[in-house]
Order: sequence, then C-alpha cells, then structure tokens
Amino acid sequence: MDNFPQTLTSKLTDLETPVLVLDRDRMDQNIQKMRSNLARFSVNFRPHVKTNKSIDVVKNMLGDTSGAITVSTLKEAEYFSAHGFKDILYAVGIIPSKFDHVIRVRQAGTKLIVVLDSLEIAQALGDKAKQARTSFDVMIEIDCDGHRSGVDPESASLIEIGKALVAGGQNLIGVMTHAGNSYNCRSIDAIKKMAMQERDAAVRCANRLRDAGIACPTVSVGSTPTAMLADNLDGVTEVRAGVFVFEDLVMAGLGVCGAEDIALSVLTTVIGHQKEKGWIITDAGWMAMSRDRGTSKQPVDQGYGLVCDLNGELLSDVLVVDANQEHGVIAHRSGDPAKTPDLPIGTMLRILPNHACATSAQHAQYHVVHRDSFDILAVWARFRGW
Amino acid sequence: MDNFPQTLTSKLTDLETPVLVLDRDRMDQNIQKMRSNLARFSVNFRPHVKTNKSIDVVKNMLGDTSGAITVSTLKEAEYFSAHGFKDILYAVGIIPSKFDHVIRVRQAGTKLIVVLDSLEIAQALGDKAKQARTSFDVMIEIDCDGHRSGVDPESASLIEIGKALVAGGQNLIGVMTHAGNSYNCRSIDAIKKMAMQERDAAVRCANRLRDAGIACPTVSVGSTPTAMLADNLDGVTEVRAGVFVFEDLVMAGLGVCGAEDIALSVLTTVIGHQKEKGWIITDAGWMAMSRDRGTSKQPVDQGYGLVCDLNGELLSDVLVVDANQEHGVIAHRSGDPAKTPDLPIGTMLRILPNHACATSAQHAQYHVVHRDSFDILAVWARFRGW
Repeated sequence: MDNFPQTLTSKLTDLETPVLVLDRDRMDQNIQKMRSNLARFSVNFRPHVKTNKSIDVVKNMLGDTSGAITVSTLKEAEYFSAHGFKDILYAVGIIPSKFDHVIRVRQAGTKLIVVLDSLEIAQALGDKAKQARTSFDVMIEIDCDGHRSGVDPESASLIEIGKALVAGGQNLIGVMTHAGNSYNCRSIDAIKKMAMQERDAAVRCANRLRDAGIACPTVSVGSTPTAMLADNLDGVTEVRAGVFVFEDLVMAGLGVCGAEDIALSVLTTVIGHQKEKGWIITDAGWMAMSRDRGTSKQPVDQGYGLVCDLNGELLSDVLVVDANQEHGVIAHRSGDPAKTPDLPIGTMLRILPNHACATSAQHAQYHVVHRDSFDILAVWARFRGW
Repeated sequence: MDNFPQTLTSKLTDLETPVLVLDRDRMDQNIQKMRSNLARFSVNFRPHVKTNKSIDVVKNMLGDTSGAITVSTLKEAEYFSAHGFKDILYAVGIIPSKFDHVIRVRQAGTKLIVVLDSLEIAQALGDKAKQARTSFDVMIEIDCDGHRSGVDPESASLIEIGKALVAGGQNLIGVMTHAGNSYNCRSIDAIKKMAMQERDAAVRCANRLRDAGIACPTVSVGSTPTAMLADNLDGVTEVRAGVFVFEDLVMAGLGVCGAEDIALSVLTTVIGHQKEKGWIITDAGWMAMSRDRGTSKQPVDQGYGLVCDLNGELLSDVLVVDANQEHGVIAHRSGDPAKTPDLPIGTMLRILPNHACATSAQHAQYHVVHRDSFDILAVWARFRGW
C-alpha cells in the first residue's frame, strides 16, 4: 500500500500528523542552483536518486526521462527503468549474486552501469558475460578519500582490473569516485580541497588507464558538498549528487546551503507539555524523523531537527532535543524552560531534518506545497526496499 | 507494494541481500520467557505491537485475536482492528485532530483506549463526546521517571483530570505509565529499582484517584526491561512490553537478554574489502540497519550491529563499525586489521541490530526461518506509516 498516495486532502492543516512535506519552490531553487553551478564546467550531470526515490521528484529535476541518473539499489534501477530512464549507474559494488538481476534490467533496454573495485569481481563478471552471452557496462570505483570502497588511485590493481574488463569484452565506461568524507569537513575551504582531491584521484586514474592503453571516456565524481563547491573540474566528464535536491541540516552545518533552503520538513502536532522542564511533546518521533543525528558531529548539534512554524519559518533556537518512536521532545537550545515558546496543544509545526535521505526514507509519500501556502499541490509516492 | 510479500524463494542463500530475517525459534522462546515471567504475578499482558507491526508476529504472540494489545499509531490501531483485535490501547497522547479517527476505529466495534495527561484534552474529549453523542475509553498517563509525557504522580491535575473525565461521561479505564528511562539503566539492580518506581507511581496514582472517589480498575505499567525484571507488581493489573519479542543489542547490553536470544537479523553479503584497514564492505548500510546507535550510550558500543555467520552464530568481536546508506563497514572491535576475519566477497552474514523497533521499520517483510536452517518458512508482511 506504500506506493499508493493517500486520499488528497486540500490543505496541510487538514492532515493527520506526522507527514512529510516537500516545498516545491525550495526544491526547484535547489535544483536550479546545482544546475547553474555545474554550468560553469563542461560536465554531464547524473543526479543520485537515492535521496528522493520518487519518479515525480526526478522528473522535476531532469525535465524528462532522457537524462542519466545514479541509483543505490537494483530496485531503484528497476523502478526508474520501468519509468523510462535508460542510462542508470548503480553506484554500489556489484557482486556475483546480483549479476542476473543486472542482466534482467539491461534486457529491458536500459544501460545499467555497474561498479567494481576488485580483479576478482572483474573476472567473475567476465565469466558471467561469457556464460550469458552478453557484456556489461562497467565503471571502476576509485577510493579518493579513504571513506569506504574503491581502489587506491596509485594501486597496480587499477590497471589489472581495467585490462581484465577489456579482455573479458566488457564496455569499460570509465572511473567513478565519491568523496564521502566531504560530509566531515569543517570549512568551505576544506570542502574545496576535498573537491580537488576527488577530481585529482579520478583524473589520475583515468590517465593511468589511458597510459596503459585502456580507453576511459567517463570520469565521474561527486557528492553534494564537492559538487557545489568545486572550483576546478578539468578532466571530469560527469558529476553526481543527491542530497542537494532537498538539502538538510547537515548540509547547512557544512555551509553548503542555508537552513532556509531546506525543502523537506516533517509536519507534526503538539500533543502535550512538561512545563517545568520547558518541554513540548509532539507526535513526530524518530519513526517520522529517522534516527539520523548527522549534526551531532558538527560544531552545532541540531538534535533531531530544527523547529519551524506551520509556514516553514524557523523558530529561533528551538529544536527537537529527543525522540522516542512516536514522541518528539522540543525545547529551547539553552535548556532554559523560560525560553521555550508557548505552543499550545494542537499547534502544527514543521521540523527540518538532519539528513534528507534518512528522513524521507521513513515516509511513503511527499505532500507537495508552495513556499507560502498550505494548499497541497500533489502527493508524490516514494518507494523503498531492495 | 510494501504489504505484498515477495515471491517465496526457498532458502536464505537464494535471497538478494539485504533482507530482514526472523528466527522463529528464538522469537517463540522470547515470548515464552516473557509469559513465564509474568505468570508469577496476577497481571494481564498487553504486548506493544509497534516493534513488529505484523499480524503474523502478533498472532504468534497471542495465539488468537482475542487478547489486548498496545499500539503507537492510529494506523496500527486500524490495521489490528481490521484483523480482529478488539481491545487496543493507543499509547501516545491523543489530540483533538485525531478524535474523529478514534471514533471511526471504535465504530468498527473495537474498544480503542486513548491516553491523555492534561485537563485541557480531557475537557476537549468531553466536548467531542457530547457533540458526537458517544463516549471514549480513557487512561490517564503518568510520568513515573521524567522520561517524556504524563502527569506527575503527586500533582493536583491527576484528580482534576479524573473528575473531568467522569463528569464528561467518559469511561475511565485507569492509569498507565512507561518507564522509558529503564533503557538508560546500567545494572540489573538499577532496572529492578526502576521497575519498582514504575509500579509505585502507577499504584500511587490509582490509589489517589480511588481516594478521591474515582474508580480506577486498570493499573498498567511496562517496558521490556522492567517487565522482565520486576520483583513486585502488587496493585498492577496489566503489563505492556514490545521489544522482548525480538530482543536486540540494547537489551543485551542492559542484561535483559543475551545476544544469542536476538531473533532479528539483517542478512547481508560481503561486496568488497579494504584490506590494509581491516575493513569488510557489505551491502547492509543504514537503510537496512537503521541509523539507531542505541548501544553508543552503553558501556559496550556495538556500532551498527554485531556480525554473525549465515547460521546466526556470532563472530567474536566483529561488528559493523560504520554505515552509509547502502554500504556497511565491518571490522574487528580492536581495529587491528590482522584480527579481521577472512570473509571473501559473496560471503553471507547476519547482523544483529541495536534496536529491533528501528531496524525492522526499515523493512517491508520478515523472512522467517528456524534457528538451524536456511529454509524460509514464511514471509510475513510489515506495514508502516500513519
């Protein structure tokens, strides 16, 4: 039932809370900002759809289905393929038990690109291609920042993998890397350096492959922070980013956006008070917000989210300080009960999330509104699962 | 599509990971343990179904649908009512915007009990009852530990609320409290004291109401730790608990169960390595595990989960040390790469979760197995949303 939009009620104020709200104007502005930013470079844009998992959001991002996208699961690949997308990068290392699934999606006419970072998988893919009388589109994953997966840019295995793929008849699309550590940067300057490091690693690997006589047409990089702040993308052909479409408090904490740019919020209602403590109890707990506490590692910890009024205007220094499954606890940042705003039972609020990917994953749909309106324009379904 | 089980594959080893696995033998044992434990007292059992959100799990817990249950959302109430449950406690403070929804569920013949902790809501409920020519079943929520909601056991408002409910024609079922702070205890003794504190607060409030001439038939307490460890439930008539059915690493850290009792795990596959770091990369990131880091506040931090082999046997001191959306990073607790077990790409593992409620909420279904078997007995659907 998750993919089936609820009956369309006309206004936010008619909804039973908690619900996920998407401000379309802020979203469009975020998309526009990323587009203008990337227009400075000659790169293709391959947005990551894992943040939104919604055909409606992605169509708004790309206009139509002719563009390239990045996915984080084969279910996403299948879903977007079924909705007309034909150029999809599955950005999580492929394994033999998923080869058949990849082949199924490709048989629907979709160019589904897989990534890998080991000779072992490159060889297994070659065996599978032979056995299934097919070939695969492949990118080699590069580790540009020690964050998780990928081959070391200087390793011998990069060339070995490239050679094995070509020898096995695969279509080596190029190299890809993701500067996941950009989320841990503490200054704009640090993000700019990380963007350079990400670029350098990818370009270095592409050139190493080329020097070894292996074609490497695509050089793909990206994360929302590095994509927004890169000064130099020479040699890069493609940029990926996902969170930018909604933005969130982690991005605001990095300085990549302002809190006023965040397009996603959880609509909640005040259900009670503990007045001596300065606590306001709401019906948006961690089930609605997610357990993500991404800002806890940043200089300013935003708890489980920042509190806005129903119009989406921030209340000054009011945050969700704790969350149980279906209860949120709101208080003033200072902890001073006298500073907690007077919000009677029944007051509706909107909470800005730490992490757009995690909070939206807790919901089956987006209730779409304009910035200064309570009217619900649309209900967009999200999907989930693997 | 979420409620629709996937095609039944016969064995865990045939599944595309990540997937949620439920060990039925461990679950049955956990249910039995709670039942025997509570059999020492003359109390009714009203399990909380928010942990599992599955009619199949609850039917296994209660045998049939004649028993009483606790829910955390009105959607849960509606779902379990539609499946035949007719005695349901909605344990999150009710607000006026949800009164109509409550009435709708009650019109289906279900005794849906609401909770409140303010005179304001008691009066609003009275107004609604009058206007709708109905009455409500109500419990007053008591704050036994300063954890979140509820009236102070010694407050004047307890009696005022009781009187307002009776005067307004509502059926005052009794009082309920939840020692949520039992999760923060650091010893068995501390949990036992918390259980006593929970009992004392509830019984004290019931007696205060009775002394004021207000009937208070039900005295309801519970959390998994206090329900398992209470020594004295004199005056209590009903116990609630939810996590116990699956158990989790937070409960194991509290000493409420052992890691070997945890019935829930996430099946994942090794997708790569960073050998110099001693990292094993898997396809179970936070989307599969949840962002819950409940053990991070405990003496032993279990990361994003403890690693078991495919049989569900714990690997010694191996845990998920980090998680991205669809990537898990496994390493030895010591951080010593030499101690990381040799687990080739393609190896299937099972990860025990920090928090059963949060991890299971990331999935649309349970793949049910026996303890020592890979054969899938059933696929049980979960629902979600509000």
